[in-house]
Amino acid sequence: MTSPFFGEFLGTFVLILLGDGVVAGVLLEKSKAKDSGWIVITAAWAFAVILGVFTAKAFGSADAHLNPAVTLAFAVQLGEYSKIPIYLPAQFLGAFLGAIAVYLHYLPHWKETKDSGKILAVFSTDPAISNPPSNFFSEFLGTFILILGIHSIFSAQIADVTTPMGVFFVGILVWVIGLSMGGTTGYAINPARDLGPRLAHYLLPIANKGNSGWKYAWLPILAPLAGGIFAGLFLKSIL
Amino acid sequence: MTSPFFGEFLGTFVLILLGDGVVAGVLLEKSKAKDSGWIVITAAWAFAVILGVFTAKAFGSADAHLNPAVTLAFAVQLGEYSKIPIYLPAQFLGAFLGAIAVYLHYLPHWKETKDSGKILAVFSTDPAISNPPSNFFSEFLGTFILILGIHSIFSAQIADVTTPMGVFFVGILVWVIGLSMGGTTGYAINPARDLGPRLAHYLLPIANKGNSGWKYAWLPILAPLAGGIFAGLFLKSIL
Amino acid sequence: MTSPFFGEFLGTFVLILLGDGVVAGVLLEKSKAKDSGWIVITAAWAFAVILGVFTAKAFGSADAHLNPAVTLAFAVQLGEYSKIPIYLPAQFLGAFLGAIAVYLHYLPHWKETKDSGKILAVFSTDPAISNPPSNFFSEFLGTFILILGIHSIFSAQIADVTTPMGVFFVGILVWVIGLSMGGTTGYAINPARDLGPRLAHYLLPIANKGNSGWKYAWLPILAPLAGGIFAGLFLKSIL
Amino acid sequence: MTSPFFGEFLGTFVLILLGDGVVAGVLLEKSKAKDSGWIVITAAWAFAVILGVFTAKAFGSADAHLNPAVTLAFAVQLGEYSKIPIYLPAQFLGAFLGAIAVYLHYLPHWKETKDSGKILAVFSTDPAISNPPSNFFSEFLGTFILILGIHSIFSAQIADVTTPMGVFFVGILVWVIGLSMGGTTGYAINPARDLGPRLAHYLLPIANKGNSGWKYAWLPILAPLAGGIFAGLFLKSIL
Repeated sequence: MTSPFFGEFLGTFVLILLGDGVVAGVLLEKSKAKDSGWIVITAAWAFAVILGVFTAKAFGSADAHLNPAVTLAFAVQLGEYSKIPIYLPAQFLGAFLGAIAVYLHYLPHWKETKDSGKILAVFSTDPAISNPPSNFFSEFLGTFILILGIHSIFSAQIADVTTPMGVFFVGILVWVIGLSMGGTTGYAINPARDLGPRLAHYLLPIANKGNSGWKYAWLPILAPLAGGIFAGLFLKSIL
Repeated sequence: MTSPFFGEFLGTFVLILLGDGVVAGVLLEKSKAKDSGWIVITAAWAFAVILGVFTAKAFGSADAHLNPAVTLAFAVQLGEYSKIPIYLPAQFLGAFLGAIAVYLHYLPHWKETKDSGKILAVFSTDPAISNPPSNFFSEFLGTFILILGIHSIFSAQIADVTTPMGVFFVGILVWVIGLSMGGTTGYAINPARDLGPRLAHYLLPIANKGNSGWKYAWLPILAPLAGGIFAGLFLKSIL
Repeated sequence: MTSPFFGEFLGTFVLILLGDGVVAGVLLEKSKAKDSGWIVITAAWAFAVILGVFTAKAFGSADAHLNPAVTLAFAVQLGEYSKIPIYLPAQFLGAFLGAIAVYLHYLPHWKETKDSGKILAVFSTDPAISNPPSNFFSEFLGTFILILGIHSIFSAQIADVTTPMGVFFVGILVWVIGLSMGGTTGYAINPARDLGPRLAHYLLPIANKGNSGWKYAWLPILAPLAGGIFAGLFLKSIL
Repeated sequence: MTSPFFGEFLGTFVLILLGDGVVAGVLLEKSKAKDSGWIVITAAWAFAVILGVFTAKAFGSADAHLNPAVTLAFAVQLGEYSKIPIYLPAQFLGAFLGAIAVYLHYLPHWKETKDSGKILAVFSTDPAISNPPSNFFSEFLGTFILILGIHSIFSAQIADVTTPMGVFFVGILVWVIGLSMGGTTGYAINPARDLGPRLAHYLLPIANKGNSGWKYAWLPILAPLAGGIFAGLFLKSIL
């Protein structure tokens, strides 16, 4: 039953379960991980990527993109456009169901949490200071660095894409993007990571939830895609 | 004198000495690690698993399960039922003695600590919000992700079960389960990890101890076993 | 288009974007990473070095120095003086542009931040206690340990300079220099890391900025260079 | 000029410079790392061991013990008694000079720090609760786990003592001993680590220093040696 679709789906499910999960742990009332801070959030998202990649590979996706911006970047650089209609639906579906799993995992904690902003933050990103051009630039640059980093890690001079060590370094890459660039917009850098859980937030009967922030929703979709495509073009033209 | 029994025993002893040890360090009064937080607790449990696995391997257990839910999961997936009567007693015995070692290591700190809830938390898990069906689901899902992750890490496409790098990634897996899913029930995800130390808590003459939380004790036994068995069936049916 | 110059340039750009970026995240008002502490700052600088090294290697610099003090140290030890006029301009240019990218990434946060000392600290280092001879010694010793550590990690008995594992250990080296020696002068240990961003601070129209600390600027240039040259001589004479 | 003596000396120098250095960074007034907590202290000691081991190997000690308790443990297990008179003086000398380097590195910070207990803690360990039999047991057990862990990591089934990955896992081992067992006595687990810096504290003209805690000094010498010898006998009898 393994396949590229199933691998991307299950890998992104694991990514979002563990990624949105840590935000729930840090933000929701009565959680044992309450207020444990930025190092906890960024470490867990990094490790979520590592585990998501291993899951995707083990269940049929050798690429393990887990991210439409990554899929588009390498489509542009390497001409692999045929992967887009397979990978993207799998990524969005995995992210959507992963967010539902987070909802169920933390079920008794929602009604203890009165702040609807924190509840939305478990699912989707929002900017620290609302400023669409700057927020767009932050997500664009973060995604550009993500693609540049993935390319550099797996460059032929250094490591092989199939080695576990390479996967570890992708985790380090996501960790440092979070630590160093996440302070502005919460580093979506992945349209599936933001839209899938936002849709789950919209549909689920979450206690104390407010609106789903649809006004901002376009930005963490378009800016990462633009950053990814630009990075693909950059790599294609340089190399 | 090395054997699968001795390896599982000594590995689980090390796991619990270092795992329950960090909870003691963070919770007990006058400890130099007092209140050092969730990153300390989750990092130490991850490293405790890594060291426990190395110990188990070095002293005769090539599998290094350290966890009845892991033994059952792979028994179901791979038909290795004959390991159950050897590994499980070794795991429970190691966990029980590991908890006694924690008691002795922190001996002068118990009488300084007046909160009996914190003293029990050094040994066994308890839910952040008591809600048996939700708590059961949390432990079930956490253990499912543990087995899915172990399988993915050691999938033939990626790494070899015998490589140190694979052991490192299992540590990362346990770390992220703690960071992202531990906020609800404290991620027992291992019946030996919970029952062995709870029994030690019940039997030891610990200053200021209260009851041993037996009312909750069934859940971190049955839910991880159910999650492990379900994961084994899932892997068997998918692959 | 890859070349040693371009590799050193792009690697140092990534280093400073991610390194100065984390200081911005921790110090600037309204950042989601605000006040997340020393572990966040030192981890991100370590990972920034790892990613900078991978970037430099992938785009044409097999050495991946990213640091004039490192270039000088190995020039002295190995007689590779011809690299100096290529690497140093690339490193300073990359650091200068990396700091501009940090400025743009955090654009709406500057005017929220009233403390001009914090704004300068995003770009350049300053001493915890002003004491030029002691501050010089701190930067000298920190850079000496950096070179000694790089040599030790890549010593023929242990690892190969081209392996990803070696790059990881250089990250650990930078991490521990930050953790253990950074408390005094903020561990510039790299003239490009300090001068490039300081120049950017001087030239950019940053809201609420004060002076650029030029009185101290010579120290994090000369002390790391002296430490690097001394380390090169030490290695040459010992080995 | 490389030799086993020089390697052990320089490796232990680096270990103590970076290890005592982080305690200085966290405890001394006006340090940029002030109050950054247990994760910072334990991470830096772990990385200090990794760097110390690489340094020792690169400069002539293939064993890279850096610790009299480790030298004695493997002397007992493997009959390598002839290393004792070479390694131990090198380790104590390296630790003594490493502590002097920490004194110089943080020179302006001592007179800002009025608490003589914190100043001594930069150099040597002291118990959280004074209780000699319990403190002895803590240091004994911590050192036993150190030796058991080193043996397990380098056991033939898993990794090779010469691989960088093995060195990394020794760092993880020291990290988790600190996290999980350090709360009681500050995990000396190394007589050179405690006595060398204590002597430096006694001899140096440190502002605001108090007594050097000689009443406790015997314990972090004898307990680790006893733990090491016991571990050597345990390994010899089991294997």
